[in-house]
Amino acid sequence: MTLPFRLAATEGAARAGLLETAHGPVHTPAFMPVGTQGTVKGMEAASVRATGAEMVLANAYHLMLRPGAERIAALGGLHRFMAWPGPILTDSGGFQVMSLGALRKISEEGVVFRSHIDGARIDLTPERAVRVQHLLDATVTMVLDECTEFPATLPAARRSMELSMRWAARSRAAYEPRRGYGLFGIVQGSTYPELRLQSAASLTALGFDGYAIGGLAVGEGQARMLATLDATLPALPLDRPRYLMGVGTPQDLVAAISRGIDLFDCVIPTRAGRTARAFTSAGIFNLRNARFAADPAPLDAACACPTCRRHARAYLHHLFKAGEMLGAMLLTRHNLHYYQALMRGLRAAIIAGNLTEHEAALRAAWACGDPGPHRKDDRGKERT
Amino acid sequence: MTLPFRLAATEGAARAGLLETAHGPVHTPAFMPVGTQGTVKGMEAASVRATGAEMVLANAYHLMLRPGAERIAALGGLHRFMAWPGPILTDSGGFQVMSLGALRKISEEGVVFRSHIDGARIDLTPERAVRVQHLLDATVTMVLDECTEFPATLPAARRSMELSMRWAARSRAAYEPRRGYGLFGIVQGSTYPELRLQSAASLTALGFDGYAIGGLAVGEGQARMLATLDATLPALPLDRPRYLMGVGTPQDLVAAISRGIDLFDCVIPTRAGRTARAFTSAGIFNLRNARFAADPAPLDAACACPTCRRHARAYLHHLFKAGEMLGAMLLTRHNLHYYQALMRGLRAAIIAGNLTEHEAALRAAWACGDPGPHRKDDRGKERT
Repeated sequence: MTLPFRLAATEGAARAGLLETAHGPVHTPAFMPVGTQGTVKGMEAASVRATGAEMVLANAYHLMLRPGAERIAALGGLHRFMAWPGPILTDSGGFQVMSLGALRKISEEGVVFRSHIDGARIDLTPERAVRVQHLLDATVTMVLDECTEFPATLPAARRSMELSMRWAARSRAAYEPRRGYGLFGIVQGSTYPELRLQSAASLTALGFDGYAIGGLAVGEGQARMLATLDATLPALPLDRPRYLMGVGTPQDLVAAISRGIDLFDCVIPTRAGRTARAFTSAGIFNLRNARFAADPAPLDAACACPTCRRHARAYLHHLFKAGEMLGAMLLTRHNLHYYQALMRGLRAAIIAGNLTEHEAALRAAWACGDPGPHRKDDRGKERT
Repeated sequence: MTLPFRLAATEGAARAGLLETAHGPVHTPAFMPVGTQGTVKGMEAASVRATGAEMVLANAYHLMLRPGAERIAALGGLHRFMAWPGPILTDSGGFQVMSLGALRKISEEGVVFRSHIDGARIDLTPERAVRVQHLLDATVTMVLDECTEFPATLPAARRSMELSMRWAARSRAAYEPRRGYGLFGIVQGSTYPELRLQSAASLTALGFDGYAIGGLAVGEGQARMLATLDATLPALPLDRPRYLMGVGTPQDLVAAISRGIDLFDCVIPTRAGRTARAFTSAGIFNLRNARFAADPAPLDAACACPTCRRHARAYLHHLFKAGEMLGAMLLTRHNLHYYQALMRGLRAAIIAGNLTEHEAALRAAWACGDPGPHRKDDRGKERT
């Protein structure tokens, strides 16, 4: 393995670890803000770093279509392009081909599709996906997988998983190991425990720097997602990082961390920041709500982010009502600060050995629901 | 006068001065970024300050409609609301009533119009305009004026100017002087020199802390704008600041400064930042142009702003092509940096006594037009 990972502490199945990458350390459990097109929407890279984020996610699919992987390589790689010197994990493109690509055709060889930008025909194979991520200079490369639709019948889920496993082997063969860089396999198998176990066994036999759980957070609901984690995680090596793709709400993160997940990415905090939804220590609320129109309090009195230090809820309310982009900027930053503080608190609790109490305190505070009504639709399609 | 203004140096008609406000100093000539609705679009207040800006403009019209002047007062005033501790000049609303208000009806008493937001009937009088700006805690209050349409016949321009002068007297009577705060009168009279002189005489007889030139940059063209300045400025007191409202391009600023203008505001640098137009030492260019797609150079090698220090033109091009809001954020910041650096350079040249040479060097560099085609439409309706 070329990507060192050390466990600093465990509590039950939960783990606090350290991933030592060529671009700097990642303390786990860690949440990666999503920078789909080479930017975390509405945030400068330096501001993302100031939230405490150590690693970001970018999408090979989007970047290979625009501006192009070769172009980014010629410009010195993605870190330099987006002025983010820290580690970057790139999604391989499998999920986006399914959700965005038109006229896609999947074969044993790979996938052919038309660009959602200009209709150009694109051939994506496991080898090309690895090559694209190499050109981007991704710190962590993801294998190309077929993201199984949900729901899927057992035979369909098996066929899809087995194709992904053959693609994983080809991705593994195409990948050039470098010190401080890594390649992650992706466990598939829908919500079928036997398929998840077969997938995990295939991947661990090949050997990867880390293991992702894919095909979740696609509408199956939290209970089935957690049951799938419970079935899958015992089959993965303890000494390698585990990454739950596209998840999730603060509640999801807490539940998955207690089961042994180390890495997460999700558009929820950034997307919510653009739609006036605030994540706070007292739960989720919508800043467009009239109750905030004259509210002089900071968004979250427990938060030390610049938005909470400088502005009243009434100002954020005004910005969203007036359609000012500063509203999205200030709230995105707060939400990312909230997520990072949440992860730091959970990591500290694992190290201190009081994760259970810490989780109970978090849930109690969320439930008090200070100013706004909780929303039921905070999960859903979370990977874009 | 309650608003101290000192001249530090002059060169010909050009002046370098210092306005000492209750919220901090303003070194003139100065350019005020426009924060119409209590935010400079796409910029945090701290970032606006970091460009070198010392004073910003906000719009009493917009803020009295939403969120309401009384609400901002209850929240501690506009400085606190928008986290801008420095001086703020507020436009009185006259221009916006003309350009945005529906069903407006002007009488001797004032103007009645319907809000462009919710259709509510609003009565705006000179006294109410002063009161609104007091509630906002504006550092500099502008009198209510009728912004004369362009073109206007001589009789229409005279009627309009004379109404504005009666309103100016009522604004003056309603204003409560406070140390470090000020009230500016607005010279009207379209492009008729005799009307401008009558207007200047009316205002100076009343006595104001500063004098604005209104009703320009409304389509008359640079030549007529400068001719109007040449006709008007000699009639204004030398010891008070002069403010050219809603102007302009870098070329406009240079021409107006050499004629003795001290203060400017304009949406051009911020609006251009949202539409991919960059102001640089080598002229104006559009970052959507394909020639920048692979360009590794900084936007302006002569610029020290964070955008130019961190990013290639190719990245900015990518952000605009991809519709990412970070493009507008980074370019708005650069454009404001450029404007502030331009003003600092002009001020230093006045103090050094080499303004003429400095202007010639600026114009020569703009004309070389490094990477992009110059645009002809950079002036126009500049006050919103």
